[in-house]
Formats: sequence, structure tokens, C-alpha cells
Amino acid sequence: MELKLGAGLWVFGNTMDRFCTKGYKEPIGVMEMLELAGKVKGLKGIEVHQSDFEEVKVEDFRKKVADLGLSVAVVNVNLWGTSKWKYGAFTQRDPKLRKEAIDEAKKAVDYARQLGAPSAGLWLGADGFDYPFQVDYITHWNLLVDGIREVAEYATPDIKVGIEYKLKEPRTHMSISDAGKALAIALALDMDNVGVVIDFGHALMSGENPADSVAFLNRYGKLFNVHFNDAYGLWDDDMIVGTIHLWETIEFLLYCKLTNYQGWFTLDMFPYREDAVEAAEMALRNIEAMWELANQIDLEELRKAQESMDAIESQKVIRKLIFK
Amino acid sequence: MELKLGAGLWVFGNTMDRFCTKGYKEPIGVMEMLELAGKVKGLKGIEVHQSDFEEVKVEDFRKKVADLGLSVAVVNVNLWGTSKWKYGAFTQRDPKLRKEAIDEAKKAVDYARQLGAPSAGLWLGADGFDYPFQVDYITHWNLLVDGIREVAEYATPDIKVGIEYKLKEPRTHMSISDAGKALAIALALDMDNVGVVIDFGHALMSGENPADSVAFLNRYGKLFNVHFNDAYGLWDDDMIVGTIHLWETIEFLLYCKLTNYQGWFTLDMFPYREDAVEAAEMALRNIEAMWELANQIDLEELRKAQESMDAIESQKVIRKLIFK
Amino acid sequence: MELKLGAGLWVFGNTMDRFCTKGYKEPIGVMEMLELAGKVKGLKGIEVHQSDFEEVKVEDFRKKVADLGLSVAVVNVNLWGTSKWKYGAFTQRDPKLRKEAIDEAKKAVDYARQLGAPSAGLWLGADGFDYPFQVDYITHWNLLVDGIREVAEYATPDIKVGIEYKLKEPRTHMSISDAGKALAIALALDMDNVGVVIDFGHALMSGENPADSVAFLNRYGKLFNVHFNDAYGLWDDDMIVGTIHLWETIEFLLYCKLTNYQGWFTLDMFPYREDAVEAAEMALRNIEAMWELANQIDLEELRKAQESMDAIESQKVIRKLIFK
Amino acid sequence: MELKLGAGLWVFGNTMDRFCTKGYKEPIGVMEMLELAGKVKGLKGIEVHQSDFEEVKVEDFRKKVADLGLSVAVVNVNLWGTSKWKYGAFTQRDPKLRKEAIDEAKKAVDYARQLGAPSAGLWLGADGFDYPFQVDYITHWNLLVDGIREVAEYATPDIKVGIEYKLKEPRTHMSISDAGKALAIALALDMDNVGVVIDFGHALMSGENPADSVAFLNRYGKLFNVHFNDAYGLWDDDMIVGTIHLWETIEFLLYCKLTNYQGWFTLDMFPYREDAVEAAEMALRNIEAMWELANQIDLEELRKAQESMDAIESQKVIRKLIFK
Repeated sequence: MELKLGAGLWVFGNTMDRFCTKGYKEPIGVMEMLELAGKVKGLKGIEVHQSDFEEVKVEDFRKKVADLGLSVAVVNVNLWGTSKWKYGAFTQRDPKLRKEAIDEAKKAVDYARQLGAPSAGLWLGADGFDYPFQVDYITHWNLLVDGIREVAEYATPDIKVGIEYKLKEPRTHMSISDAGKALAIALALDMDNVGVVIDFGHALMSGENPADSVAFLNRYGKLFNVHFNDAYGLWDDDMIVGTIHLWETIEFLLYCKLTNYQGWFTLDMFPYREDAVEAAEMALRNIEAMWELANQIDLEELRKAQESMDAIESQKVIRKLIFK
Repeated sequence: MELKLGAGLWVFGNTMDRFCTKGYKEPIGVMEMLELAGKVKGLKGIEVHQSDFEEVKVEDFRKKVADLGLSVAVVNVNLWGTSKWKYGAFTQRDPKLRKEAIDEAKKAVDYARQLGAPSAGLWLGADGFDYPFQVDYITHWNLLVDGIREVAEYATPDIKVGIEYKLKEPRTHMSISDAGKALAIALALDMDNVGVVIDFGHALMSGENPADSVAFLNRYGKLFNVHFNDAYGLWDDDMIVGTIHLWETIEFLLYCKLTNYQGWFTLDMFPYREDAVEAAEMALRNIEAMWELANQIDLEELRKAQESMDAIESQKVIRKLIFK
Repeated sequence: MELKLGAGLWVFGNTMDRFCTKGYKEPIGVMEMLELAGKVKGLKGIEVHQSDFEEVKVEDFRKKVADLGLSVAVVNVNLWGTSKWKYGAFTQRDPKLRKEAIDEAKKAVDYARQLGAPSAGLWLGADGFDYPFQVDYITHWNLLVDGIREVAEYATPDIKVGIEYKLKEPRTHMSISDAGKALAIALALDMDNVGVVIDFGHALMSGENPADSVAFLNRYGKLFNVHFNDAYGLWDDDMIVGTIHLWETIEFLLYCKLTNYQGWFTLDMFPYREDAVEAAEMALRNIEAMWELANQIDLEELRKAQESMDAIESQKVIRKLIFK
Repeated sequence: MELKLGAGLWVFGNTMDRFCTKGYKEPIGVMEMLELAGKVKGLKGIEVHQSDFEEVKVEDFRKKVADLGLSVAVVNVNLWGTSKWKYGAFTQRDPKLRKEAIDEAKKAVDYARQLGAPSAGLWLGADGFDYPFQVDYITHWNLLVDGIREVAEYATPDIKVGIEYKLKEPRTHMSISDAGKALAIALALDMDNVGVVIDFGHALMSGENPADSVAFLNRYGKLFNVHFNDAYGLWDDDMIVGTIHLWETIEFLLYCKLTNYQGWFTLDMFPYREDAVEAAEMALRNIEAMWELANQIDLEELRKAQESMDAIESQKVIRKLIFK
């Protein structure tokens, strides 16, 4: 199994937060971000958003991607980047706005087809709520699931639709908040092209052990894609892979291997104060190094240890990777 | 809709933690706990564990329950109360132990039938892990789901099996950790008698808004039962209902009403240092008072506010309940 | 005791997050924000930042404040609003930048004097770190505490310097992270004009019970100011006061009263998607209503209950406020 | 600098939680625990509780400790192990109980003198609260601080008193909840023999980076002792050192070295389901290995990187330890 290493185009853009409103860097255009991505050694794929093509032509972008020797892994749906979606997208109670939201998602599917990307990514960052009583959950879930179904039907049969879950931010609560909810929706929709995207830091924020979520989603054939980063666990810090959760990241890679995951490992980092190309390169080198460590594990020995269910036994196998 | 108010029998027993190993109270027997339950005004149902009947005869218990004017709401499965299950129950890698675990769960179904309880409760507190790499998640999930299926088949058609999710404690990670995972398992099993139990504090610990989980589970017809308590949100504090999350509890009750929930509201509190009967009575009175508040909400007004999706609008409706 | 109700000027400005980079509202100027503040019924004071006076003249601002019948409660130090401070302010390892940071803080003191504000506020949002090993903590703390001392000396004797603690955001770790650290620094500096600012949501994020922090800080005479809002507890949600932690907010107000707190209650909310004037008015009305509830508590009864140390007893006193 | 490696005697005892009330192991006596401690290779010191000497004679214990080639590092105060202290110890509102609590703490000082231990440890697990409004914080803090002062005076001049902070468990809130509060109390008491104990997992639970807390406490000469373990961060999991927070543990050891920490590194683990001797040995070997890694760091290079304040620079230095 070969590591397919990608990065979100946004990794290379300006970074800001609500305090530093003009950003820690300079604003740059989509093509410039792509050029920066092209500088990252070992990078093979990129993820984009449908909204990138409000700025550049799909065909120009496609050519440039090819020139750089990259491919487009996923076209994501941006339905949170303007105030228009402040109250929701697929869950909009205003039918006109809701239709526009779904149309934007269909555009992502169109662009995926045009760019040769196998997947569209649905991270529905606006679809949730901030306060108790703010939304009617019954109507809300109906609108949300119906919207996903409509996009997934549009994407049938050739484009996969990956639902990316996240507990919170930018809303205090996002509706599709964890691996279980995303999977339940996918199972109930019962469509071959609907699955789930794990973001490493989102999984941590939802209290999951990412390796376990890999196994759980794969059990139902529904792990479609991976967004890779690291975080302290209570917020989506979007940090450089491997800098915090070393053991859990090695375990995550191991279970991607054991479940024969064939998708991308796409950096979804937000290097607020760091040089993006350097951060991305460090992340890729860290992934490669941890992949190497995961491959050093004596699987027969580990399986025997796991059969005992005694943590001491499995730790004896694992600690050797680092504690010489 | 009438509130069916219950309590776990364990609410009335000795309480301990790992520091106060003999307990904050005195050890008492199952029949004594039942008598204490009988003293709680307004209590109509109780929940028990199959392990209670290692101590008392089912028939004796049944009679006493009837004498007290109560009924048995749920027979839960205790597969965590002795060191035997320290490494797991349904997920045991030792086939003999695993069979014993499943047999215990079947006993709960048997007792449910004998006691006239509609449900068996599966809170699988030992089925998880403590350390990274400790269990093989792939095998683990297979064993776990197969075990649930076997018990559910045994319970078909007359006894419901409610899966109760919890993020952690007593393991650092329990496998069925949130509403989504529990629902995904129930959907994949696709059996009419398999559903989900919400524990208010567990929902909080998993980052959920309990009212939202009610709506999500009900959407798929899978909300079977409620365990009621309160907590600060990061741990299963098992506190008196209504003492911390007032707004969220009112909202929870409202959505139980709006989804036409027909099950029990069973106290699952752990009054470490408090008198159990007093704590239970206060909890029931709090529930009744919050139910009254939930019923005071002008639903038409709320729905209109929710349609606007503006939190100010829904808050205007809700704050009147308390801020006169 | 009269409630001195204020609001941060920033409550009325544009709101954004890292996803909605142009903001949920329109950018407006300092004077426009002030005008909006002037529309909030019951508002008596405002807080500003030294950086506001890069845009408007202090004298013009002072007049307008007076015209609106308001007063300036605090001039805060903004040392996080531009990329210049991305790595730190008082903890800058570049001596030139560090001097500039301290000069900015001194400007806040100057403006406080010119505007008749009794306090300067030090929320040092850039002084922390994001990654392990990123800063040398030994040097870091020296620079941080020396910087505070220098500003406090400049502010002596007439201007109070309030240290506002916060656990995280915009850094993954901010150095002055909780009430204890802020107090320890204040005690070690041993200057009359150095104290602590509690932000309700920051206290929650640090795992504190805000009322307890009031008592703890007041014990050492070091509670200088209050920033008021609400939050779910794991992040600085900056929500409308009273919408989540009802009981804790009433308790907070009670302990402000019992400790004879004489300072301001200043709204530090961030109404991302809400109308700011409406949000501020709702917050003030909620505070007034909760203040009324706090005053309804029979203190003799509560003190007796607290002497028993039994939670049931104190809950019996408190629940009557709401559960009629 | 040599690593002084110790273990709490309790590491070797029976382990239980509120669900498995008889424990995961067998109950054993104090002398048996000591014998188990004696089997751990590389162990040099132990920590005990004053309550251990309700079971064994101090003189017998002292001899046995010497025979095993160990020494007693700390005598801790157990004021949480029986229901007597359920509502508090130093903060008891019942003067008789409070006096008993303080007398128990003085016994710990006496035993420290008899056993040649330099320190008494004050982890005041009962002194906090569970519910809002349960205690009067003003009285509470007075009692708490006065109690510490009284014990510290009794311990003057030869026995150090180390205040160990913890956010929660067994109370939902413990009063001395973080490094800052503990330090503030120590600074205000202004006694040479009063300082602070860091427990690695407690620091994580309070949102601290443990290395930073080492530097902060040392800045004021107040880091007295270390309790070592690991945890996922939201609860006191008391796991084997080095199994979760690898990077942070290396950094913690580095800052103990850089601040010239002279105290013990005492295991405070709770191997619920694991063999205690094996768990302790693994922890010590992990500490030694991470100590070795910390010593491999090129300090000049790290300092230069830290001076840049750019996380990429420090990560370049650090990642080499593991990512070859």
C-alpha cells in the first residue's frame, strides 16, 4: 500500500481568526495557492472547493494542476464562507436559499467530474445551531438528510459523496457531529456513493480514538476519505500532523493499513503563524516517518498481545518503536 | 402525554468511588433498595439488573414490586460489576467468558419476561479499551455487534433491547460511545426490537445536545428509553435532574413531547453523599416543574421563531419562562 | 448595591471567524459602534481598546461618550489584532517589538487617564504558545511578568491594571490561563493597582465555577473587573448572558453581591449572527432578572443549608427560585 | 542530575471503581504492597499515607523500607478514604470534624519525621463541592487556607508541605484546582516550607501544559514534588507514564532538568486491570527512555529556535528525536 498524500488548497492561503481579522499572512489567489502546493515535496493531490471557481476557470485550473504533476482528490462544498449561509445551508428554512445551497453542492459534483476528482466533500459547517431552542431539530434533520440525498443522487453513479463530521466551529453545535451520526445517515440513505470523511482532529474533538473510527466506518464500507492534521483534542487546532498525538497517529495509520484504506491522506491544517509550505512538508515527512514506524510493528506479536486484552502486553510490543 | 417516572434500583444502594472504597453509605440488599424506592412519591417504575437476582428470587421481587404499586421498566445487563469482566464482556477474546457474558444478557431478557418489563438494557461498560493498541478494533467490533444481535434475536419478538451509549468510564474509551454509533449499529442490525437508550449525562459527555439526540434517534424510530440525571458535561456525574443544565433539560423534555416519546424517564443518579430518597424526590419534582415549564411554551410562537433561525427570536420566546 | 452595566465596544462591530473571513456583518467604524452602544437601554459604561484611537481622536470620542450619557469603564490593550503580534507581545523575543508592545499598553493607560476610566485591561491574547517546545517557558514568564510590572508602574497610582486570564484562543495555550495564575502573578508583584479580571466564559473554560473564582480573588482583594457572557464551557463562545448557565450565573451574581464587588459588569459577547443591540439588551435584561432572583434568595436559610454541607439542603433553598 | 524514581504505595494495592465495587484485584495489606514495591527494578522511594499506620506500626514499616533499600519520599494525608470526610476535611463546618482532619494532617508530619521523609503531601480530595450553592465559598476558603497554615506551622522548619492540586474527582469541583491557585495560596501564606506538587495528569486535566507549570512554579521556588503518570487529559486516568502524551512528557522532563528540579518523580498510577509491578516497571523504563531523549536535545539549537518563536523551527529540532 502506497501513501497517497494530498493537501487542501486552503492550507496555503491567508490564515486568520476572529481577533486578527486581516490575517497573519497576505491574501493570495487560488492560482498562487496552487503554485505553493506544487512546491511541497511528495505532494500528489489537492483538495479544492467549488467556490474556488468563482475566481478561476476550471479548465485553467485543471491544466495547471496537471502541469504541476498533481491531481485533484476532492472537490469540497463551501457553504460557510459568506454571511449568506450564517444560519444554515441545507437546513435553511428559506426555500430559496436552501435551493441555492444545494445547487452549490451540485456544482462541486460538476467540478469533480470536470477535474477528474473521484469525490465531492460535504462538510456542512453552517448546518447546526448556536443556542438551545434555536432550531427545530425535527425539521432540521429532515432538511439536512434530504439535501444530502439530493446531492448524492446528482452525483450517482460516478462521484462519491463524503460526509465530513465535526462537533463544533463555526457553530457551537454542528448537526453531523461525529463518526456515528455520519455513518447512521449514510446507512439510512443506503446509497453506494455516500460515505464518511474522517478528519483526525475532528475525531479527537468528538472524543473518538481515530484508529477505532477507521475500523468502525470501514466495517460498513463507508470510510471514503481522510483529512489529516493534529490537535490538542478539544478544538480543531489544525496543527502539523504528528506533533501532539504521536501514538494515536501511528495507530491510525496502522488501522488504515489493516482495513486496506485506498483513499487519500489529505492535509487539512491551518498554519496560522507558520510558513505553509514548510508546515506541509514537515507534516508529510512526519506521516512518512510514522508510516514507517507503523510498518515496523510485528503484527503477529501485536495480535497475540491484543488477544490477551492486557494493555501491558500490547504496550510491550508498541513501546519498542520509540523507547529503545 | 403522561410522564412515566422511574428510578434505577441502584440509586438507593451504597455509593462509592475509587477513593472511598467502603462507600459513603452502608451496604444494603436488593429488597431494602426496593423498599426505599417505594418511599419516593410519584415513582411508578424501577429498573433493575439481572445480577440482582443472584441475591433475591425473581418471584419474591415481582410480588414486592406489585405490592409497592410499582412496575419494572427495564432489566439491565450488569457485565461490569466483577473483575471477571475487567477486559470486556461481549468483546471478550476468551470464547468461554464471552459465552458467559451473552448468557447473562439472555438472563436479563428472561427476567424481563418474568417481571413484565418491556425492555432489556444493554449498557456494555466493559466493552472498550483503556490504552491505544490494546484491542484489535476490527475483531472487537465484530464480537460486539454479533453479541448484540444474538441477544436481540433471543429477545425477539416481545422484549426490546435498548443500547445505552457512553463515552467513557469505567474504561477510558467505551466502544458504543455516542448516539450516532448506537444508532448506526441499530440501523445496520435492522431488527425491530433493537434501539437506543439516551442517558442525559452521557449525551452531554459525548458533546451532544440531548434534545437534538432525541430528535435524531426518533427520526429513525429508535429512541427506546431515557436515563435521567444531570452533570457538568465532561464526566458522568449522575447528579439530581435540573440542578445544572436547566435550559437544556426543558428543551429535552419539550422534544420528548414533540416526538411523542412513550417510554420511561428513569432516574439514573448516583447520590454519592446525599440521601437517596430525598435526591430522587427532588429530581422527580424538578422534572415535573420543568415539564410544566416546557408545556408553557407557546409552540406556535416558538416555531415561528425557529423558522427565522435567529437565536434572538427563539430566546425571546424561551426566556419568558423564567425571566419575568 | 447597584448594577453597573457596561459593554465592550467590540460587541457592536463586525463579527467574523476563520471560515467567514469577511464577517457576518458589515465593517463599521468606532464612532458607529459607539452610537450603537448608545442605543442599548440601561447601558451605562463602555470598554474600549487603545487601538480604537488609531481611528478616532480621544477627545472626540470622550465628548461623544459624554453626550450619550455613558462613561468609559476600561481601556483595554489590543496586542493581538495584527500579524505583528503573531508570536507574542510582552513575551516577544525581539526587543524592539517587545518595547512597542509595552508602549501600546502604556498608551492604554494614557487614554484611560484622558477618558476618565479607572482601569486599563490586559488581556494578553498573543502571549502563549501553540506547540510543545515552541517557547522557552523560563524566559517567557520573565518577559511576561516584567512587562506587566512595567505597565503597572506606569499606571501607578491612579489607574488600575486588570489582568484578564484565558485558557486558549487565539493561541492553543495562553500563558495567563486561569484565575489562580493571574492571582499568583498579582500577589507576587505586590502592587496595589494590579488585580484580576474575570470573564465568565473564560472562567468556565478553565474549569472554574465563576462564583468560586469571585470569592477566591476577592479574598485577596484582587477582583477588579468582570466581563460578562455565557458559553457552553469548552470554548469562549461569548454568548448572551443567562442563556446556558442559569444557575451558575445567579450564583455568580450572588457572590459578587456577598463580596461587595464594586466594579462593572461589562458585556463581552460576540454576537456572530445576531443583531448586536438586541443581543446586548437581552443580556442586560437577563442580568437584571437574575440579579432579582439572586436577591430573592433567603440568605439566612442558604447559610444554614451551606453549614450542613449537604447539597440537598442548599438545593431546597435555591430551586424555589424557579421550580414553583 | 539523577532521576529519583519513586512510587506511591497505593499503586500496588487493590484497584476499584464505582462499578466494580470489590475491585479488579484482591485486597492486600500495607506490608504486602511494600513488598511489591520492593520488586520494582530501579525504584528508590515510596510515598505513603498517614492512614497506612492505622494498619502497621511506623517502626516496623521503617525497618522494612530500609531492608528493601528504599526510602520514604512523602507522607501524604488521606482525608478522603472514609465516609467521615464526605463533605470536607479542612473545610468542614463541624469544628470537631475539622479539628480531627487537621490532627490527621499533623500525624502525617509526625510520620514524615519518624520515617525520614522530607515532605508531607496535602491532596485535599474532599475539600470542594459538587453542586452550585452547596458551600459558602467565602467561609470555605478561609477554613481551607487556615487549615493549611496550621499544618505548615506544625511542620516548620524541617518538613515541607506540598499542596497537590486537582480539578475534580472525587468532588465535581475541588477547591485547589490548578497550579495557579495552589501557587497563589503558597505565595500568600509566604512560608518557606509550603509549596506545590504537580501531578502530570492533574495538570493536563486543568488545561495546563505540564512543562509550563514546572517553569511557572519554579519561578517562585515552589515546585516541591512530582506525581507521574499519563492520562487522556479530561480525567485523572492515572495511566502508565509515556503511553499517551509522549512529546509533552519529554518536554516536562526537559523543564525539570532546566529548572534544576531536585525532588522525586513518583509514580501515581492506578493500574485498574494491570499487574502493578509490571506497570510500574514499564513506567520507570519509559521515564528513563524519555529522559534519555530529553538529554539528546541540542539545547543550543533549541534555544535558538525558541528565540525565533516560530513553531516550525523548534519542531525541526525536536522531531529528530523520533522521526529519523
